Order: sequence, then C-alpha cells, then structure tokens
Amino acid sequence: MANVNLKKLAGELNLSVSTVSKALMNSHEISIETKERVLSLAKKLNYIPNPYASSLRRKTSKTIAVVIPEVADSFFSIAINGIESVAQDKGYHVLIYLTHENFLKEKAILNDFQSGRVDGVLMSVTSETVDTNHIHDLCSRGFPVIFFDRVCEDIETAKITTDDFESSYKATKHLVDCGCRKIAFLSFSKSLSISNKRMEGYKQALADNKIKTTEADLIFCTNDDAYNYTLLKNIMAQKKHPDGIIASVEKLTTTVYLVCKELKRAVPRDVKIVSFSNLQSALILNPALTTITQPAFEMGKAAATVLFKSLEKSGFNLKKEKYVIPSTLVVRDSTVEGNKK
Amino acid sequence: MANVNLKKLAGELNLSVSTVSKALMNSHEISIETKERVLSLAKKLNYIPNPYASSLRRKTSKTIAVVIPEVADSFFSIAINGIESVAQDKGYHVLIYLTHENFLKEKAILNDFQSGRVDGVLMSVTSETVDTNHIHDLCSRGFPVIFFDRVCEDIETAKITTDDFESSYKATKHLVDCGCRKIAFLSFSKSLSISNKRMEGYKQALADNKIKTTEADLIFCTNDDAYNYTLLKNIMAQKKHPDGIIASVEKLTTTVYLVCKELKRAVPRDVKIVSFSNLQSALILNPALTTITQPAFEMGKAAATVLFKSLEKSGFNLKKEKYVIPSTLVVRDSTVEGNKK
Repeated sequence: MANVNLKKLAGELNLSVSTVSKALMNSHEISIETKERVLSLAKKLNYIPNPYASSLRRKTSKTIAVVIPEVADSFFSIAINGIESVAQDKGYHVLIYLTHENFLKEKAILNDFQSGRVDGVLMSVTSETVDTNHIHDLCSRGFPVIFFDRVCEDIETAKITTDDFESSYKATKHLVDCGCRKIAFLSFSKSLSISNKRMEGYKQALADNKIKTTEADLIFCTNDDAYNYTLLKNIMAQKKHPDGIIASVEKLTTTVYLVCKELKRAVPRDVKIVSFSNLQSALILNPALTTITQPAFEMGKAAATVLFKSLEKSGFNLKKEKYVIPSTLVVRDSTVEGNKK
Repeated sequence: MANVNLKKLAGELNLSVSTVSKALMNSHEISIETKERVLSLAKKLNYIPNPYASSLRRKTSKTIAVVIPEVADSFFSIAINGIESVAQDKGYHVLIYLTHENFLKEKAILNDFQSGRVDGVLMSVTSETVDTNHIHDLCSRGFPVIFFDRVCEDIETAKITTDDFESSYKATKHLVDCGCRKIAFLSFSKSLSISNKRMEGYKQALADNKIKTTEADLIFCTNDDAYNYTLLKNIMAQKKHPDGIIASVEKLTTTVYLVCKELKRAVPRDVKIVSFSNLQSALILNPALTTITQPAFEMGKAAATVLFKSLEKSGFNLKKEKYVIPSTLVVRDSTVEGNKK
C-alpha cells in the first residue's frame, strides 16, 4: 500500500518528522502556523495514522480481545453482542479469537497478548484447560483478564458467571417433580468449574429428594459428535434407560434428540429433556425444548463494563469484581406435554 | 506491563538498540558472537517482540480479518472454521469483526484497515451495503479484499460464492413438484446480489412452470424479528395464504415456524417450507426442515486459500479468482411428510 506517512508529509513541508508528528498531536511546542500547514496537507493527501506506530506512542491498541471456544454455541454469539454494545460506545475494536476447545491454541493466543496487541481480554476457557500458567503469566504483568461463564477458580481476577449450581439444582428438581427417577447428567468437561458446579447442583437435588445417583448416570461427552451419538445410543437403547436427561451444554441437545428419534423413545413420555441452551429455535424443536436460559447478553455486557473500568481507572482492583447473574428455567414440551410456552 | 524491550536488552549488553534489533533479526551485519550474546540475554529475560514495532519493520501484521454481518447464523460460524483451518497452517491470526448488518460499522472497520492493522480481509457485506466506495478505496491501494457469499458485483476482485440462482430454482421447482401453486419468497435485502440471484432463480422456476408470480409473493423482511413476525402473521392469516415458502436466510425459519404454530397452519399439509440454512438442528425441528445447505466450510476454506496465495505471490491477480461451489437441496418433512432423511 502506497500510504502517505509522516516522512512524506515532512518532506513535502520541508519540516522534520518529529515536528510533523508533534503538530498532528497538537503539541504546545509547535506554532499555530506550522500546525495549520501540516493539518492542511495531511487532509489534502488523506493521511491516515498507522495504528502500530501510534500504538507505540500511545502504548494502547484501542482493541480488546474476546477468547472463546466457539461461536456455533448461541450463548457465545449472544454474549459477543453484549460485549460489542459496550465496546462500540468506547470506540474500541473487538477482536474475536476462537480456541475450538484446544488448550494449546488458547495458550498460543494468550502468549501473543503479552506483546501489547490488545489492551485487555475477556475469556471463557476451553474444556481442556487445567494448567493455568499462561493466564497467570498475563495477570502477573498487570494485563487485564476478565473471565465470563467458564472461569478458572484459582486465578484471582474479575469473574462474571451465572448461578450454575442453583439453576442445575432447579432443573433436576423440575425433572423429579415431573416423575423422573433415573436422571442422567451429560457433562462436557471433567475439569471446568462450571461443568462441576452444574454436576454438583444435580447431585444435591437428587440427594435432597432421596434419589440415588450412580456413576453410570454421569455421562462424559466429548467434542466428537459421532462419539457422543454412539455413547448416548448405547445408553438409551437399554431397557432401563434414563427417564430424564440434563444436557449441560447446548450442542448436546441435537444429539440427544436424534438418538431418541432413532430409537423411537418418545419425548417427554419415555424420557424428559432439559438443556442449558440459548437457542432461539428451542421453541420450534420437536418437541419444544425446556431450557435453562443463561443471561448471555447481560454477562457479555457486564464483562466488558468491568474491563473498561480497569482500562480507565489506574489501580482499579479486578480481584473484587465478581458478578453472578441468574439463569432462568423455561418449561416447554420436552418435560411437560402441552405446555403453552 | 513491564515488558523487556530492545532498549533494555541494549542497555544490559552495552550495545546500540539498532545492533540488538539486527542481531535478533539474524542480520549478516552482526557478528556471530554478538548474536549469541543478544539471543542468550533475550531468552533469559523472556523478551517478546512487540508486534506493532515488528509490524512497522516487517510491514505485515501476520493477521487477517474476517468481516461478517453476524455469527448467530450457522453459515458464518461454519465458514469461520473453514477460514481458520487454512490460517492456522500459515501461522496467521484470524480476527473476526461483526458489522451487525450496519453499513456505517462496515465502513468504519474497513477504513481502519487502511492503516495496516491486518494484511488482508475476507468479507461478506451487510444487507444495507449499496455504496461500495469504502471497499474500492481499499482495493485501489492494493490491499487484498476477498468476497465470500455476499459479494459486491461492481468490485473486481476474488469472489467465492455458491450457486444462488440454481439452488433457489431447484428449491422452487421442488415446491411446485410437491403441488404448491402460491409460493412466497422471503427476502432480507433489496440490494444484495445473492438476495437478488435467489429471487431470480425463484422467479425463473415459476415462469418455467407457468405459475404466475405477483409482487405480493415477494416479502421483504428486516433485521427486526418482531416486525417480521407481524408481517408474516398477516400474510399467513389470510384465507388465500401461500401454500409454499422459501426463506432466503436461516434466521427467518424460526419466525415462519412460530407464525404457522400460532395460526395452526400445519406444515407441510397447509404450507410447505424450504430454507437456506446450515442449522444442525434442522433435523430435529417440528417438522424437520427441508434446507438448501450451503458449502459453508468449503467456501471459507477457498476464500482463505485465495487470500494466502495473494499474500505469498507478488503480482497475483485477484480479479481472475472466481469460485462457485454448489449448494445441496436436502428434502425433509417440512415439504414431504414422512421423509426419512
């Protein structure tokens, strides 16, 4: 690209690069006449400041990063909207980085941030993340890291979550109230704290209702749809199959529905299904899906708001910023037939 | 962040900043002994090059941008996976910018690229984009712009599309073959070329089958779900409502289904529905949705491949790069009841 740069402006005006730069930054060291000459030529030649050069001067990139596992999950796509609603007002760019649930990719992305490419990061860790040294490293350099949804408990920084334990408890209680006595919990990570909190809520609700849990009812799914399909098909093909299922992430819903369809297990008669999901199409599934709907937009907005506070106020203490925004159980036909919602 | 920079390295080694910089870039001007001293200290102090500083030197950012209207549409979330599959191999970062169908936002994002923040862009324009000066400006500076899916016909550069006319023709013909005689076409833009091609395919199929189209069957939806809902409800409430619907974008599906549900219009008996959609949940909708499935992953991959060719070969002619990857009509229950797919 044949850009007009400071050097070109300086050459045409017979001034030093430093004088032109100071004039453009409205420095008191430069006379009004010189400023006018510089600005007039800059306008005429359509001079656009190089952000890398000006980032070096300003030491900020006016850019924040969002590091998330994927965008195919509607929670994340809605959360991004919440984040952008704040960033846009602040005149910041939002860069979205996808880890695809790959720990090494997450590590490489965060390592790159050490260089000052972005001013702060909002992140939801991968389902594989156990070692958190790469995040510790960033935080210890004073780089603002804000967690939302999938947080690392051992890192002291701002965390925006939903009530994972309580909403999972409520969903399990709902299935018990609907008559379920053998409820399976579909997990997607053995390490993630939100995954474990959802599982704990499930276990507690069963214990409080005097229903025994067995390890066989805790089903660990992976990122591989074909693997999950076979796993769930084997479980639902049994004579004593679960009569209730809690899917702890949205993307397991399609697999569960397809398995039930293939095995002719009627929902909700033979098995009742609840999913953590923000899918708009939950209403038009066959049958309409009972969901735990997370406050995705609000969580994204809250996370971005905290980040900008920390960028704007020096000495702002991120460690004290903890927000828990509740989810909502929305009952539909997959647990209660003929429900009107 | 207290980064170790070139100045600090130079100070500790009693060398000039320029010597340290050249040593790190393995310049032939610097002796092997000096290079070893510099590299050894850089390693010890965990020196990480500032990308903005090194971008100024290298004049590349090792970053490509993807500018798309939204990620809530599964076409775009799958296309991103295709793009990342190529970028990852090349060691490039992929930055995702969302326009939210807002022309002014698209303009601001593209204007920012003039500064060298990214090395190239893969884009799908907003549904509002008519004026294309902001894209012309970038192209005329030799900045690589590759269109995928939503292209601007008047800009001569690489374009990766699907067979919008043909697939829409095929879908309309399918509805005619299923007995539909009053087929509505749901459009989402009056200006987008893909939107118009899809409409032309629809019109041609009706003409070839001697079915009259009326302007009333061309329904222009917006980004406002509530507006679309009311619009479609008024149309489907009529006694002579359409007996077939083609939704030209995925997100209109939920609205159409909800309207039919509320008005008790049975699908496919009272009205048959086809949608341009890559939704995985199409299979588990009530009823399962007949789709025109676009080659989203392949289109993203092809677009990224062309961009890297242009970044790697100087003088590579983007204007000749036109790829049309066909879509597939997948027939399900929303047009043919009891279909097994």
